[in-house]
Amino acid sequence: MGKEGFFITLEGGDGSGKTTVLGRVAAYLQNRSMPYRITREPGGVEIAEKIRSIILDPAHTAMDTRTEALLYAASRSQHLAEVVEPALREGLTVLCDRFVDSSLVYQGHARGLGIEEVWSINRFAIGDRMPDLTFYLDVDPEIGLSRIAANQEREVNRLDLESLSFHQKVREGYQLLVDTNPGRIVVLDANRPIHMVEQDIVRTLEERVLKGF
Amino acid sequence: MGKEGFFITLEGGDGSGKTTVLGRVAAYLQNRSMPYRITREPGGVEIAEKIRSIILDPAHTAMDTRTEALLYAASRSQHLAEVVEPALREGLTVLCDRFVDSSLVYQGHARGLGIEEVWSINRFAIGDRMPDLTFYLDVDPEIGLSRIAANQEREVNRLDLESLSFHQKVREGYQLLVDTNPGRIVVLDANRPIHMVEQDIVRTLEERVLKGF
Repeated sequence: MGKEGFFITLEGGDGSGKTTVLGRVAAYLQNRSMPYRITREPGGVEIAEKIRSIILDPAHTAMDTRTEALLYAASRSQHLAEVVEPALREGLTVLCDRFVDSSLVYQGHARGLGIEEVWSINRFAIGDRMPDLTFYLDVDPEIGLSRIAANQEREVNRLDLESLSFHQKVREGYQLLVDTNPGRIVVLDANRPIHMVEQDIVRTLEERVLKGF
Repeated sequence: MGKEGFFITLEGGDGSGKTTVLGRVAAYLQNRSMPYRITREPGGVEIAEKIRSIILDPAHTAMDTRTEALLYAASRSQHLAEVVEPALREGLTVLCDRFVDSSLVYQGHARGLGIEEVWSINRFAIGDRMPDLTFYLDVDPEIGLSRIAANQEREVNRLDLESLSFHQKVREGYQLLVDTNPGRIVVLDANRPIHMVEQDIVRTLEERVLKGF
């Protein structure tokens, strides 16, 4: 058995630029000759994809908030079992676009189910597997939503249709997690142009890679 | 607001005769002029049906056991929100074919996830809603499976294909729940002909209805 890889997650509200920075991080890992895998739930995992299609179907207006939270946890456990854990065991650095913090924030805080409650089902879903490092791209919801509106290529799903006040609750929820997980979560000001956020991420990765996380 | 209805669940291994006795219980409630609703997860609820189709698809051999448990909990919370809770609020007696005990036994005990662990996600799914009364139809797995084999009309799903030892673990799990929930769970010997089981159920219902459960 070789050394297990590092598990890094990327978090942030809609339009925070997560997707854009992923490619930059990949290029960094490539340059450092660090074998890596970039993924996001449901990550091409058939069972997880089917679960997510139920969550995101705009026709499912009757979806109970607890059902939604359980479905996210189910999709997460399948993606973890089929993609993340095998990659980490192979020694790959895994960079995952959104992970457990998204559920704590969106379902736990913004939808009002309670962060502790949502954590209880996610602890079941992920066992002891927590990220070694989480980048949180903090963006003002009005800026984030204006970026989405400007991006014609992105398909609008049920979650994008939430009100601005919902997205403000999301930001508030992330701040709560940052306050209680200062060691794991690194906050980045994503109101700035994306290339500046990317520079901060690369700098942090440099530091962490040198000291072995 | 009128009085809330009673919530009764029916549990038992495959071939214990649950489906057969349901009609008899319905007839009893009809005779007593007790308005009722008989249901089972996913209960015709579109979102819950879609979740169950993912669980029961024989092609999903890569399904993680935690994912499976979370999907059952998700299906349960949706069915509860759309069917059970509204019916109880209307004052109907709700009889549900399988409920939380099935998950505790099948995923918690038989698949080895742990009854307490599976209870944690189900507590999230059902909140404070526990059955007022649960009938457990206890059958020897060999007798149960031979009944299924004799029933040509029933479609075989992924769960029926489990080994005999799995079904024996299921029975063991139910016994653990019976030991820890003696007030709620009534055990019925379902190795006997089904009409005798039905008589016991009707007798118990008579007693409970008279004393208001």
